[in-house]
Amino acid sequence: MSNHTTPITACLLICCPDRPGIVAGVSRFLYQSGANILDASQHSTDPREGLFFMRMEFHLDELDKARLEATFQEEVATPLHMEWKIDYSDQRKRMAILVSAYDHCLLELLWRWKSGELPVEIPLVISNHTKLENDCRAMGIPFHYLPVNPDNKAAQEQAAIRLLEEHAIDFTVLARYMQILSPEFVGRYPQRIINIHHSFLPAFAGARPYLNAYTRGVKLIGATAHYVTNELDEGPIIEQDVVRVSHKHTVEDLVMLGRDIERQVLTRAVKAHVENRVLLHGNKTIVF
Amino acid sequence: MSNHTTPITACLLICCPDRPGIVAGVSRFLYQSGANILDASQHSTDPREGLFFMRMEFHLDELDKARLEATFQEEVATPLHMEWKIDYSDQRKRMAILVSAYDHCLLELLWRWKSGELPVEIPLVISNHTKLENDCRAMGIPFHYLPVNPDNKAAQEQAAIRLLEEHAIDFTVLARYMQILSPEFVGRYPQRIINIHHSFLPAFAGARPYLNAYTRGVKLIGATAHYVTNELDEGPIIEQDVVRVSHKHTVEDLVMLGRDIERQVLTRAVKAHVENRVLLHGNKTIVF
Amino acid sequence: MSNHTTPITACLLICCPDRPGIVAGVSRFLYQSGANILDASQHSTDPREGLFFMRMEFHLDELDKARLEATFQEEVATPLHMEWKIDYSDQRKRMAILVSAYDHCLLELLWRWKSGELPVEIPLVISNHTKLENDCRAMGIPFHYLPVNPDNKAAQEQAAIRLLEEHAIDFTVLARYMQILSPEFVGRYPQRIINIHHSFLPAFAGARPYLNAYTRGVKLIGATAHYVTNELDEGPIIEQDVVRVSHKHTVEDLVMLGRDIERQVLTRAVKAHVENRVLLHGNKTIVF
Amino acid sequence: MSNHTTPITACLLICCPDRPGIVAGVSRFLYQSGANILDASQHSTDPREGLFFMRMEFHLDELDKARLEATFQEEVATPLHMEWKIDYSDQRKRMAILVSAYDHCLLELLWRWKSGELPVEIPLVISNHTKLENDCRAMGIPFHYLPVNPDNKAAQEQAAIRLLEEHAIDFTVLARYMQILSPEFVGRYPQRIINIHHSFLPAFAGARPYLNAYTRGVKLIGATAHYVTNELDEGPIIEQDVVRVSHKHTVEDLVMLGRDIERQVLTRAVKAHVENRVLLHGNKTIVF
Repeated sequence: MSNHTTPITACLLICCPDRPGIVAGVSRFLYQSGANILDASQHSTDPREGLFFMRMEFHLDELDKARLEATFQEEVATPLHMEWKIDYSDQRKRMAILVSAYDHCLLELLWRWKSGELPVEIPLVISNHTKLENDCRAMGIPFHYLPVNPDNKAAQEQAAIRLLEEHAIDFTVLARYMQILSPEFVGRYPQRIINIHHSFLPAFAGARPYLNAYTRGVKLIGATAHYVTNELDEGPIIEQDVVRVSHKHTVEDLVMLGRDIERQVLTRAVKAHVENRVLLHGNKTIVF
Repeated sequence: MSNHTTPITACLLICCPDRPGIVAGVSRFLYQSGANILDASQHSTDPREGLFFMRMEFHLDELDKARLEATFQEEVATPLHMEWKIDYSDQRKRMAILVSAYDHCLLELLWRWKSGELPVEIPLVISNHTKLENDCRAMGIPFHYLPVNPDNKAAQEQAAIRLLEEHAIDFTVLARYMQILSPEFVGRYPQRIINIHHSFLPAFAGARPYLNAYTRGVKLIGATAHYVTNELDEGPIIEQDVVRVSHKHTVEDLVMLGRDIERQVLTRAVKAHVENRVLLHGNKTIVF
Repeated sequence: MSNHTTPITACLLICCPDRPGIVAGVSRFLYQSGANILDASQHSTDPREGLFFMRMEFHLDELDKARLEATFQEEVATPLHMEWKIDYSDQRKRMAILVSAYDHCLLELLWRWKSGELPVEIPLVISNHTKLENDCRAMGIPFHYLPVNPDNKAAQEQAAIRLLEEHAIDFTVLARYMQILSPEFVGRYPQRIINIHHSFLPAFAGARPYLNAYTRGVKLIGATAHYVTNELDEGPIIEQDVVRVSHKHTVEDLVMLGRDIERQVLTRAVKAHVENRVLLHGNKTIVF
Repeated sequence: MSNHTTPITACLLICCPDRPGIVAGVSRFLYQSGANILDASQHSTDPREGLFFMRMEFHLDELDKARLEATFQEEVATPLHMEWKIDYSDQRKRMAILVSAYDHCLLELLWRWKSGELPVEIPLVISNHTKLENDCRAMGIPFHYLPVNPDNKAAQEQAAIRLLEEHAIDFTVLARYMQILSPEFVGRYPQRIINIHHSFLPAFAGARPYLNAYTRGVKLIGATAHYVTNELDEGPIIEQDVVRVSHKHTVEDLVMLGRDIERQVLTRAVKAHVENRVLLHGNKTIVF
């Protein structure tokens, strides 16, 4: 029916034991399926681990997704003991944002989305403050206010989970969300929650990183975007960057300079995730 | 004979009209030849040009180079209208260095070579000054003094060409060589002469870039490594970088700060060339 | 009357022939006036030019501005042949923004202003498009639509000048304003118009810098904020920065990556101007 | 006698309680002494601490150092409760280098020294290995071999101290010296020992930082130059920088990339120290 429209782009991610013939096997399969490979990246771990990772992006003029996937499983993935997944450009990822009262990361994501730079759906923003409600509504993004206190924290997390499920959210961004999520919440969404931490991890994990950076007298401050795990600030790092500071800067200056780095680092991490460029290898990422 | 030694790594570079099946064709060939692909990168130009570029690095336990190359030509390259070349890790590239009186780029290359970071042979250094002779001899590098004046310039270039030919040089680095090479010299070595220019090209092409940068009041100065062509400072750019400067810096300060950038940019470009990571696409480079 | 409130900060900028005793003269005057110096920076040009530049920021508990200035002129500035000006923290600079249809630089400036990072008044935005009207109104900024075509260009510039004068604008930011201002307009506001050019000047001056950067195959793209003069893209540079690009990036990618650099470079330049950190020395800036 | 030679440059560093009149007092004194201020920088800590730091560089045509210093103490320093010190350009600092078997930091410092970029005397290099002896001797630098084992460690440190004292060393650089110095040694030379640590401190303090950075999967690696104190890797940071890495890099690659950052960071820190730009404020540095 849709054979006159823009061809769909698919993105295949695989992980399997390293051995000769993987690229040949996958690329022959794609060729025989009528695909044209647009981009390919691969990575082999050191021989003791012996793992092979690959990302292949390809066009298909006509595409029977279910059949493609079933055939791939049978002819390629099973023989080569692959873990794999595939995404298609006609199915935008659905991103939720959790935010507290700082606006910079939220507004940056919304601006990137509005400008077309971030090809996602944003079905909802959830916040424990009302401060950013107007900013969301002005962009047409539904805003859910879930205030949190020690007594209702578990219940509000359940409410948040229900919202994420109802809206079929693919992944969640913590855009300076100042609450620690429960192990239950985190465990439910492996490699599907991205956090921005306002330091160059592993330096200054935990609370008040800018104050600690100031106290230590470092000459660069940074930000780190990572997948959330149940080890606080210990999840797989997706992206990091730094900016130069000096003795002239107060803690408030570090907070201000840090905002720029936070915005950029979080954006790059979210884009990499959305473009299916991030694979996990233990507690580390491969970012193609 | 050598089947108990480290396997040879080969690096295949190809350029051909873009069409489906190239990756499949090359990777099947390599698989059937017993190769294990270590790294692969590819690039497609925009559809109007329709060109495909690829670099594949692979191990082969036993290798009959002549046979591999002949079979590849017949079974893969001819049907797909490929230009290609292959390099092997057991044949180190032979690098010549042309230098005048500035030592920083020369010493950097020699130190990288001595430390094993730059896997090349350096059969000779040619200079129009004697100043760096001792530095070369101390490292065991033959030094050839070819002083240049307006009367002997053509003859000395012929002498240099003879030296490059006698020593079977693969490529030449101009490590701040303060002479313009003749069209004959340049034309003889396409994509085989790397120059370091002390500005962020195309800004401040030509003579005295640091003085011109100072006069213009730029806030960053840079360096550019490029292949030499007969358009002065217009050849394909391999690598560039910059460093921040301010009103406090004199021209002499820019020269000093620029040395650090020149050393780094030239080193990265030479490494990319030595590792067969640089392909040409018109007057631009693809650096895998 | 206001001696229980926050003390006013003043910022003094001077330029004079270099000679011994200038720092002593100025600092003694300030001390005797009851000021406490918070920050001081100075710069001497090379001896042939023999110029001295200084910026001093100081607190004054009680301040009779007119008297301070008259006394300074008489006791310090006249004897030392100084050009000078002084700004006070209780008089925010009034900034106008001229913009066309690109939103990124405008929104960045408005967000910095809203967050308190940019201590200015923004009495108006002028645009030759209506596209950004809603964004301005949502922030409470008056928006003036002055469409431009070859026939009305001079008249619309006069209308713009009237608006700037009516609103007592101190300086104007061209936030990707896609019109060339007339010599009359520019000449009226020396060192009072800041432009962001989307290249690393002097490379790629003029139109279509991203296309030209793409065509040349540079490995870094940049942005430059400068004061506007009647030499197109030749005015004094305030700030520049770059970002790494590669053969993978299309022209559209460069435009997208460039937006981030444009936003940052323009912001830093505007902040430096607002904080009275920028002095002119011929066609160059001193940024303290 | 020397009144026809280049005037001496002096550099005055002061720290005192913040109060109005300090700049006026110092600059008046210098003016009356016939000095011309070349550069001045100042820093006030936050009001609770209330400290003022200043660096002033000045020319003096004729200079009676002892008298200048005595008068300064009496007329300025005592009334203002200053700690201060002064250095003169005709007395080059005497720098010792302690090194083990890695050559990159040592060679970088020696090259900077040879090129005139680092205006110091280098009366000796001390090493617990012989590997770098020839490199030192080729540059005319005396090399002392003090091998260290658990039994002789204390004695060899005493020998090192004797060498430093005999040669009237002003400060010592640990250019990747792979031994931990005793509290006695360190306590003897406060703010006079500079170390280069191969990580972005406080991340990856202690042993094997590149391995730990690899294991954690960071996206940037760094280096930190700091004054040595008896808290391992906790001394005041002078300079830091980072370089981007990815999943492609092995630990060996990090070591190689890190060498470039180590060389640059250590060089910048040593230059700042030599130029009297580094003041201590608690466990932090002010780098003017």
